[in-house]
Amino acid sequence: MTGAQTLIRTLVNSEVDVCFANPGTSEMHFVAALDSVPEMRAVLALFEGVVTGAADGYGRMTGRPAATLLHLGPGLGNGIANLHNARRARTPIVNIVGEHATYHQRFDAPLQSDIVALAGNVSKWVRVCATSDDLAADATDAVAAAIGPPGGIATLVVPADVSWGTLAGTSARQRPVPPTGSVPADTIESVRKVLVSEEPVVILLGGRALRERGLRAAASIAEATAATLLAETFPARLERGGGLPTIERLAYLGEMAIGQLASARHIILVDTAAPVSFFAYPGQPSELWPTGCELHVLAGPEHDVERSLEALADAVWVSGSSQTDGLSMAPLAPLGRPRGPLTSVSLAAAIACMLPEGAVVVDESNTAGVFLSGATEGTPRHDWLCNTGGAIGQGLPVATGAAIGAPDRPVLCIQADGSAMYTIQSLWTQAREGLDVTTVILSNRAYAILNLELSRVGVGAGGPRAERMLELSSPDLDFVSLAQGMGVPATRATTAEDLVVQLQHAVREPGPHLVEAVLPVGLG
Amino acid sequence: MTGAQTLIRTLVNSEVDVCFANPGTSEMHFVAALDSVPEMRAVLALFEGVVTGAADGYGRMTGRPAATLLHLGPGLGNGIANLHNARRARTPIVNIVGEHATYHQRFDAPLQSDIVALAGNVSKWVRVCATSDDLAADATDAVAAAIGPPGGIATLVVPADVSWGTLAGTSARQRPVPPTGSVPADTIESVRKVLVSEEPVVILLGGRALRERGLRAAASIAEATAATLLAETFPARLERGGGLPTIERLAYLGEMAIGQLASARHIILVDTAAPVSFFAYPGQPSELWPTGCELHVLAGPEHDVERSLEALADAVWVSGSSQTDGLSMAPLAPLGRPRGPLTSVSLAAAIACMLPEGAVVVDESNTAGVFLSGATEGTPRHDWLCNTGGAIGQGLPVATGAAIGAPDRPVLCIQADGSAMYTIQSLWTQAREGLDVTTVILSNRAYAILNLELSRVGVGAGGPRAERMLELSSPDLDFVSLAQGMGVPATRATTAEDLVVQLQHAVREPGPHLVEAVLPVGLG
Repeated sequence: MTGAQTLIRTLVNSEVDVCFANPGTSEMHFVAALDSVPEMRAVLALFEGVVTGAADGYGRMTGRPAATLLHLGPGLGNGIANLHNARRARTPIVNIVGEHATYHQRFDAPLQSDIVALAGNVSKWVRVCATSDDLAADATDAVAAAIGPPGGIATLVVPADVSWGTLAGTSARQRPVPPTGSVPADTIESVRKVLVSEEPVVILLGGRALRERGLRAAASIAEATAATLLAETFPARLERGGGLPTIERLAYLGEMAIGQLASARHIILVDTAAPVSFFAYPGQPSELWPTGCELHVLAGPEHDVERSLEALADAVWVSGSSQTDGLSMAPLAPLGRPRGPLTSVSLAAAIACMLPEGAVVVDESNTAGVFLSGATEGTPRHDWLCNTGGAIGQGLPVATGAAIGAPDRPVLCIQADGSAMYTIQSLWTQAREGLDVTTVILSNRAYAILNLELSRVGVGAGGPRAERMLELSSPDLDFVSLAQGMGVPATRATTAEDLVVQLQHAVREPGPHLVEAVLPVGLG
Repeated sequence: MTGAQTLIRTLVNSEVDVCFANPGTSEMHFVAALDSVPEMRAVLALFEGVVTGAADGYGRMTGRPAATLLHLGPGLGNGIANLHNARRARTPIVNIVGEHATYHQRFDAPLQSDIVALAGNVSKWVRVCATSDDLAADATDAVAAAIGPPGGIATLVVPADVSWGTLAGTSARQRPVPPTGSVPADTIESVRKVLVSEEPVVILLGGRALRERGLRAAASIAEATAATLLAETFPARLERGGGLPTIERLAYLGEMAIGQLASARHIILVDTAAPVSFFAYPGQPSELWPTGCELHVLAGPEHDVERSLEALADAVWVSGSSQTDGLSMAPLAPLGRPRGPLTSVSLAAAIACMLPEGAVVVDESNTAGVFLSGATEGTPRHDWLCNTGGAIGQGLPVATGAAIGAPDRPVLCIQADGSAMYTIQSLWTQAREGLDVTTVILSNRAYAILNLELSRVGVGAGGPRAERMLELSSPDLDFVSLAQGMGVPATRATTAEDLVVQLQHAVREPGPHLVEAVLPVGLG
């Protein structure tokens, strides 16, 4: 048995049975070993940013790590941006990076680089496997590190000779059981006191608190105490619709977020960090909470977040049993079909009225998607997956991985045009794997968010040379051609009516589709 | 004057007047400052791998650094692979990476990451600019570090507040003058003794030794001494054709390279490293030279390489003045047009018979291009630019930057299909800037090199699951659609006659073109 076969067998035994891959020569033994462990599903991507983003989407939907397979330092480099996003989402990923054979590294061959330094940037755990005999234990440790809690990226660097070396026998291991940390009773009690203090309280929810159990418990707390619920700005996975409690998200724009938090005397953090501005701006504060406001932590990613919220709900309801499912339910109203030209508003309405039951929405809509969240509140049950780390080019890959992780659910990827171009190669993997992903490209032919940012950083309107850096025109991108070039059927919508019909058709028909929604230039 | 204005002004004063850019919010002041320093040409790319690869191509053609503009750690991550290649090419690049404002970094906002750790991997010089007042001096130092010699990547990390801060006055600086290190007379003499020893000698040339002056001097040495000349496997820029001395390149496949060096008793290294295998293979040596062979260094990248070769030529020719332009000139013969189906051979012949005078050939042809080098020996004068670091996805961006660096020369990018997909976004920048780049996609619908590697790593033929990881079919990529989607006119050639006609048309007509050369599946 080769090291590579042992590695794959160990991963499969640990329930890591999907591998997103873009291999090279130093990973050929891993590739060769795929036929000896048929339980491992290998999914080829044409670019490493697709590999790592897909592993993120898969992990968000399944709670289990996918493996990646990357080629040396440059391959890892290409995957860094979406690993960064996955790190912020706390997605479990077993990130396997091939390396030159141990004895070859001292020759500084052309592809030699410092893989550990690159990996450290995005990983909670990094190990270079030393010998073939260590591979099973190292892979088991990697899975355990990835699962956490908190979940994260465990990078295992595998030199080629470790991969091709042979072992006496197999070393099957068990799936690591994630520990669940309880929140101390003292913490629950001190947060309870804050909630019943009659001072204005915001409960800021993130991570697992935004799944059904957490949301229901939080809604119950809010009902009992009049605390205001807010969700972090870019959740990894927010469960919504179908009668779940609705929750407003903290705004991306610092000015608006400051307004949302202005009256808070206390902020209770549940599986999220203290709210800070995404970027710094001249004369603007980094901290978004008002002076004198106190921050309290109920639970972090290392805790059993749902139980901590339920315990708090028990504590604030005197009886401990009178909670209802809350007052803040989303109305389930039939939504009218929008008509006329495509705008941010009609686009949002079109998506709201076609959103299928059980959809997984991957949202990298940026500026043009400003009304999406509000418009889709009353729709059937769905999940909403955001760009957690701000590295653009995350939507298409995450949608790809989400479709593999949740094969019975329709995936809708709402994708800004500029961001789409970072990882457009995702479409090919969607076609090859026959994934039920519908991509809507929001085509406004601009980095519209940067136009907005240009005005916010205090330099006034840009001159013509600055503006040209923010335009995606001359030439316009034709996403229908691009999709067809990668085997994905595509259409173009220029009115709201078009968009609804084309999206409904795309969702009904198996396999991937792309709809280019042509918006006014620079719409943001 | 803002820091950003000072930075751009300083770069322009140092003759760094092209900036390849993919900016984000933290770089908006740099973008805004473009209108105040019109001498700086900013070129937008849709992906950072295009930015860094274009800077590499530009630097190879001009000898001067371009600037890049990258957005934080993830933007640098996306650019790492082509910076890796540029590092191996010793291309001068001033790599500017935006960072959060200094006071904002402690908040660990979503895009925070360790930029210096990422940059260290590819840079010979890294500095984080501390204050706006330091920017002019830091930028000047960065240019000096980039130019060297040896050339390399100087990364300047610019926090947003350093960019938006104001300065009392401008701080124009002069262009740094690269030092030129002389090779000691002792070294020349000891290498001369080796050459006249009558033992078999190989002179392995790389870097600047592969430009006209170095090649002529080396050919003269070979003529006087019967030494064998070889070029390193993947030169950054090899001057060829039009009567220049021809030179065989060391093979990529270790087995073949070992054969080329088998009879050498001495290898003289000129601006290149000791020849080692690109990858390690079970049972194969890393070092490619035979046992007992001695390695000698004539000159390294820190030296005046051309002068060292000329001094050596003077030394080996007794008279010091009787050198001719050598015996090993390339024949300038009219080449017949190939006919019939496209194969590696007819493809190479087609390119040889259309190659225009003064062409810049960017070669990421991989397996399907195996006959290109031989076929094009007798063509008009041209430059040949290779993938120096093995990180694929380098051809299209390098061609883009080369066209900006050498605007009066036709650029021909010979590009393997799998590698093309890593940085396909380059085509849009070519269209936007109206660059005279002709791209030939070698479409064999496979990572053919990996099929070869799979057999070389000792695992025999791959099973069907392994083979699927190396195929680019199901669906086939349609490069004509992809190019048209980014505004580049494109055609498809299925015969050698087609290919010649389409390439000639593409070169004649201004602006970028793409020709998809459809080869047999898996051809390698």
